[in-house]
Amino acid sequence: MIQEFQISTRAEESIVNITEQVERIVAEGKVKEGICVVYVPHATAAIVINEGADSNVGNDLLTALNKMVEKHGGWLHDTIDNNAHAHIKASLLGPSETVIIKNGKLQLGTWQSIFLCDFDGPRERKVIVKVLEG
Amino acid sequence: MIQEFQISTRAEESIVNITEQVERIVAEGKVKEGICVVYVPHATAAIVINEGADSNVGNDLLTALNKMVEKHGGWLHDTIDNNAHAHIKASLLGPSETVIIKNGKLQLGTWQSIFLCDFDGPRERKVIVKVLEG
Amino acid sequence: MIQEFQISTRAEESIVNITEQVERIVAEGKVKEGICVVYVPHATAAIVINEGADSNVGNDLLTALNKMVEKHGGWLHDTIDNNAHAHIKASLLGPSETVIIKNGKLQLGTWQSIFLCDFDGPRERKVIVKVLEG
Repeated sequence: MIQEFQISTRAEESIVNITEQVERIVAEGKVKEGICVVYVPHATAAIVINEGADSNVGNDLLTALNKMVEKHGGWLHDTIDNNAHAHIKASLLGPSETVIIKNGKLQLGTWQSIFLCDFDGPRERKVIVKVLEG
Repeated sequence: MIQEFQISTRAEESIVNITEQVERIVAEGKVKEGICVVYVPHATAAIVINEGADSNVGNDLLTALNKMVEKHGGWLHDTIDNNAHAHIKASLLGPSETVIIKNGKLQLGTWQSIFLCDFDGPRERKVIVKVLEG
Repeated sequence: MIQEFQISTRAEESIVNITEQVERIVAEGKVKEGICVVYVPHATAAIVINEGADSNVGNDLLTALNKMVEKHGGWLHDTIDNNAHAHIKASLLGPSETVIIKNGKLQLGTWQSIFLCDFDGPRERKVIVKVLEG
């Protein structure tokens, strides 16, 4: 089973909790045991798993990435598209996460949520969710 | 097949080689071909694959992450839990790794081992291992 | 189905587009729906997904990693093998990526390509591709 959904991001850089959308797809799939792959088909966005209770955890991650990757640090790609920093950050986090399914439920820890990171927004972003039984 | 095991970490930050535990679970599963997902359900820990022969490779990784992510760099989450740096490092490395199984064995390279990283220890940490045949 | 191919890298650090090789393996597999795991069994190399249209995106990533991880920053492993920076960078990016297969095709976004990063070349590198149906 493969399903997709859209997220409209609202800022140049943002991190959006998508756990509910993914959990709904897993519930509909009625798969008892397997894995769930959450994938973003964009080169300036990423999927990340971290704490969802305090939304500042996500904001701290964006701040930390901005300290690590200078926004316009003389990147070669900036002469073409001016968003090299967004590509670099997306590469560091990666476009997907894989979560184990047991008894029909994602085995996220108590403090784990799934997030879409957009480093070149605001935009309409697509998320693809694949549930694999086995 | 899903199995779990516990690791008691012994320092605030540590990296523990868990290859043997994962290999034992894969051997018990008797799956000839498939994949193995190693997942940590904690928001301040991560799974990473790297060299296990020289334990200093792991120590260098912890040092490098500390240079990239200041321990108390004015992070917003520190006002609540004082461990924002641990969440940021866990997000950068991610909570899981996927390894291919062939002829009943993990296709790790000669120099690759699987590690649990704890950035907010010492603690009892859970690792979930899912073997998927196919 | 598991298949492998070799890549001869040509510089100390390089990033090589391997999308065509992976797509060919997926096409041969004739799997309509499932996932594809691309894995590099080396501790100083990594698999990453990012833009392939402008090759400078990959070069910017190598530059950014060199700013984050000093080449000889007093790493402990350098006393043994002098390539600690390569291990750290490989750990940050990780040895694999998982891509969803739908209608027999990798669900890469318009701007996404799959790359092998070598941080300790030039060398002969092996890439393992596992297609899992389901």
